[in-house]
Amino acid sequence: MTQSVAFIGLGAMGYRMAAHLPKYFDTVYVWNRNFSKAEQHATEFGTIASELEQAAQADVIFSCLPTSQDVENLISSIKIKSGAIWIDCTSGVPDAARRLAEQLKAQNVAFLDAPVSGQTIGAENATLTFMVGGDIDAFERAYPAMSALGKLIQHVGESGAGFAVKAINNMLLAVNLWSVAEGFTTLKAHGVNLDAALNCINASSGKSLVTENIFPQRVLSREFPVTFALPLLAKDTGIALDLVHDAKLPAPILSLAQSLIQAASLSAESNSDFSAAVKMYESWTKITLK
Amino acid sequence: MTQSVAFIGLGAMGYRMAAHLPKYFDTVYVWNRNFSKAEQHATEFGTIASELEQAAQADVIFSCLPTSQDVENLISSIKIKSGAIWIDCTSGVPDAARRLAEQLKAQNVAFLDAPVSGQTIGAENATLTFMVGGDIDAFERAYPAMSALGKLIQHVGESGAGFAVKAINNMLLAVNLWSVAEGFTTLKAHGVNLDAALNCINASSGKSLVTENIFPQRVLSREFPVTFALPLLAKDTGIALDLVHDAKLPAPILSLAQSLIQAASLSAESNSDFSAAVKMYESWTKITLK
Amino acid sequence: MTQSVAFIGLGAMGYRMAAHLPKYFDTVYVWNRNFSKAEQHATEFGTIASELEQAAQADVIFSCLPTSQDVENLISSIKIKSGAIWIDCTSGVPDAARRLAEQLKAQNVAFLDAPVSGQTIGAENATLTFMVGGDIDAFERAYPAMSALGKLIQHVGESGAGFAVKAINNMLLAVNLWSVAEGFTTLKAHGVNLDAALNCINASSGKSLVTENIFPQRVLSREFPVTFALPLLAKDTGIALDLVHDAKLPAPILSLAQSLIQAASLSAESNSDFSAAVKMYESWTKITLK
Amino acid sequence: MTQSVAFIGLGAMGYRMAAHLPKYFDTVYVWNRNFSKAEQHATEFGTIASELEQAAQADVIFSCLPTSQDVENLISSIKIKSGAIWIDCTSGVPDAARRLAEQLKAQNVAFLDAPVSGQTIGAENATLTFMVGGDIDAFERAYPAMSALGKLIQHVGESGAGFAVKAINNMLLAVNLWSVAEGFTTLKAHGVNLDAALNCINASSGKSLVTENIFPQRVLSREFPVTFALPLLAKDTGIALDLVHDAKLPAPILSLAQSLIQAASLSAESNSDFSAAVKMYESWTKITLK
Repeated sequence: MTQSVAFIGLGAMGYRMAAHLPKYFDTVYVWNRNFSKAEQHATEFGTIASELEQAAQADVIFSCLPTSQDVENLISSIKIKSGAIWIDCTSGVPDAARRLAEQLKAQNVAFLDAPVSGQTIGAENATLTFMVGGDIDAFERAYPAMSALGKLIQHVGESGAGFAVKAINNMLLAVNLWSVAEGFTTLKAHGVNLDAALNCINASSGKSLVTENIFPQRVLSREFPVTFALPLLAKDTGIALDLVHDAKLPAPILSLAQSLIQAASLSAESNSDFSAAVKMYESWTKITLK
Repeated sequence: MTQSVAFIGLGAMGYRMAAHLPKYFDTVYVWNRNFSKAEQHATEFGTIASELEQAAQADVIFSCLPTSQDVENLISSIKIKSGAIWIDCTSGVPDAARRLAEQLKAQNVAFLDAPVSGQTIGAENATLTFMVGGDIDAFERAYPAMSALGKLIQHVGESGAGFAVKAINNMLLAVNLWSVAEGFTTLKAHGVNLDAALNCINASSGKSLVTENIFPQRVLSREFPVTFALPLLAKDTGIALDLVHDAKLPAPILSLAQSLIQAASLSAESNSDFSAAVKMYESWTKITLK
Repeated sequence: MTQSVAFIGLGAMGYRMAAHLPKYFDTVYVWNRNFSKAEQHATEFGTIASELEQAAQADVIFSCLPTSQDVENLISSIKIKSGAIWIDCTSGVPDAARRLAEQLKAQNVAFLDAPVSGQTIGAENATLTFMVGGDIDAFERAYPAMSALGKLIQHVGESGAGFAVKAINNMLLAVNLWSVAEGFTTLKAHGVNLDAALNCINASSGKSLVTENIFPQRVLSREFPVTFALPLLAKDTGIALDLVHDAKLPAPILSLAQSLIQAASLSAESNSDFSAAVKMYESWTKITLK
Repeated sequence: MTQSVAFIGLGAMGYRMAAHLPKYFDTVYVWNRNFSKAEQHATEFGTIASELEQAAQADVIFSCLPTSQDVENLISSIKIKSGAIWIDCTSGVPDAARRLAEQLKAQNVAFLDAPVSGQTIGAENATLTFMVGGDIDAFERAYPAMSALGKLIQHVGESGAGFAVKAINNMLLAVNLWSVAEGFTTLKAHGVNLDAALNCINASSGKSLVTENIFPQRVLSREFPVTFALPLLAKDTGIALDLVHDAKLPAPILSLAQSLIQAASLSAESNSDFSAAVKMYESWTKITLK
């Protein structure tokens, strides 16, 4: 494509995502706070490590930062090209998406909240899922760029809807992780073979991505590889709970799961994977899930 | 096989399960409390509607009744052939399995707790999952008979372990069902397109059998087909919680889910599918999940 | 006192509170949105039903409105006398207290968040508890006016602290109410005499204002007198939970109680007393607490 | 009184309770597993340290042991005098009370489940509360003996009802303790003065014995004096939850509190007072309640 594109934020996800862009775009700017990472990316993938001001002049701009606050700070510091589309892949806050969409609209810039799922492996293979909120026309114009990085590119509603779906997805992940820990600890206490139990449940109605993948690969393996930090999961469950409260809804299970994940995050060793939340539960029961 | 086999309890599951046995066994006895169902089964599938006493003389006996109490009552009323294997497919109580295994051992009868998952469609297609507790030798002898009805036949531990795994599976189903209801109600309150959200989550880390199957097919469709009654799910979550308490474990999420499902069961219209538990949540929020 | 005083908001609490002021102040203005209530108050207690503009010129101004939003709207519409003290008895939001305190400081007006407890009987007998946040000098200047209406006048911290204590107090009330309902339903299901049980618990470590007063007088009596509306308790538990989340704390019990009270509030008949929250629990169990 | 009386179990409660009996009874036998304690009691209070066989021949026999299991073991090992009354002050299990009442009735012995509250100070001052289940005639015959040790002697229902009330009382204590910890941690995180907040709440609708006594004296003081061990509170909440499940009731708050107390008990240092349960919560939040 003759459009220029920029990618802002080269973390574990962003670094891999931006690597696909040179296959589709002639000009690909990359920027990162720690700028040596941008230079490394340019060397490795043929992108252009550029100043933020230049990145902001691209036709399509991706961002992938830790929090919505980071995105708001960054956007408030730059002048974006009129007519551009900003695709924010951060797992962010729906209210921030609405504010940014409105604010950028006044500058003739479209803003899409477009968080992704699929983890680093999905970023590497360009098989991410994009859950996108915002103007449908902007979504359609941004579709090719997102397609370069993902497999399922799904418009889910107005501004903020993408962030909302991501937050609820991660909340369900948290509920599943914790409840599987409780269930399998119970089984272990009763002498059940956990691998055999997992086989059964994965062929039954209680299965989830947690039982199929997270639990055997990260917990029972005792590997807890740090691909998605526990404090970020805690943050996402907090975003989900804010959605619950804004809507004045009761949500007993989600509320409890958020409390538990928040407690686990506060108690965890620094640099823990989200799956290490189960270690708090193990510290209660003195039973190790292996 | 030249062994004789019996199937006791021709409910929604048992009726379909027993239908496969004549393909593998020369002599297949069937019995049901409402005996006309046994006669209908004999006519339809070439089985033999027999007295309970005769069924109890088969080499392999399957039972599939509503509760362990029903199984214990029935077994206490009959004389089982020495050397037989009893395969109890009820979603039962681990303690009952241990009692029955011990009691029948004295009569030279092996007892396996072998609950199944896969629902009526799995029973019909002989693709059920058997999660089996009990003596490993008896398991191996019973393997061919179970293989006639299922796809995954998994030994999970000593007597009671099969029932334990089933109870935890169904507890996880309950947790997932309720938490997805909370999450999707939140999304609906914020104007998100639920079908689009479901697409995203089913490609992401929050997915479960509930998001892939139960929720779209039973809840969002508003069909709530009665294939697994809500009071039975409530019973199973109660069995799971008894396992938690016997082991003196804390289990905040499972305990809460059990309370909610128990409340939903007490509040539901009679003859409700388990998926109709979400209707209690809908009655709180005044938001219909569709 | 030669100071003039005003009371804004003559609801169930405010009407009774303002009645004491003429005993201590020469000039007492009262104002109410439904102005006929102000006129009735003037007739009954010798206060002066006045325009809001005039009330805002008093030396000490009390407000007692349903929500902080109402107070903020009202304050933004008037010009308050320089040097005045505004004592807000609303069960309000800490953040609003901080905003108002800062905003009014610029107009040389002191703002205290000073919610009260003690119910209508406490208002009638001038035995209320004031839990007060804000500048300590303003607190001391406002002390005599609050003393006219209350027995315990307690400074609890900076702006917002008063509202915070009230929100947590009401959250504890909600927890106690619901847990007593669960506990006594359990006792009733086991055939225990509830009045006798209440006697014991009120002499034991499980006692609370709920067991001593609320439960026998409002629930077991089946009177549910409407002195504090359920939606207001739901609002207060929501304020408490916002405090929890702002501080990024886990709070499993408070979170669950808030969900249950919110559900009960959404499900209740309009104009329900807060104690009628137990009716939702009764609808689950089919056991009436009497 | 010319009746003889025995007291079995001279722990922190029993030792002080038995001390009052010589004022009212001519013959007072005491027994304790660690017999030197019985001898010490005899020396100190003029009771008779006797063999269990002799104690079992008293007209009125009190027991105060850690668990119902201990009481059942002990009773099964002795021959009790026909016509005697057994008053079991253990915080026990309702089902055990029913079993023992029935079993002893066949030996013409009346059994009352008569747990007490009031802590060691109440035992010392003979101001305990007795919550009594069992036959009303036996209750009336036993009334004078219980009156020697307590202030409120309350019949609450059939056999097991006394244990049930005690279990629910202690469950409410657990709920209150934990929820106050959550609430006050939230207040502290927002800079509120905790002593001032406690003053307010103790004059308001959120008050409980926990806010009035336990929390200031044991938690905020950081003393955690070991007068009632945390594992015993965990046991009692477990008894309460068994009552919930036997009645097939939902009880979300009680269930969650039980999980938390159970986790706290498993995690605590050995020999922790029940009030030290809040330390688990403190370990999550890194906020110390002082």
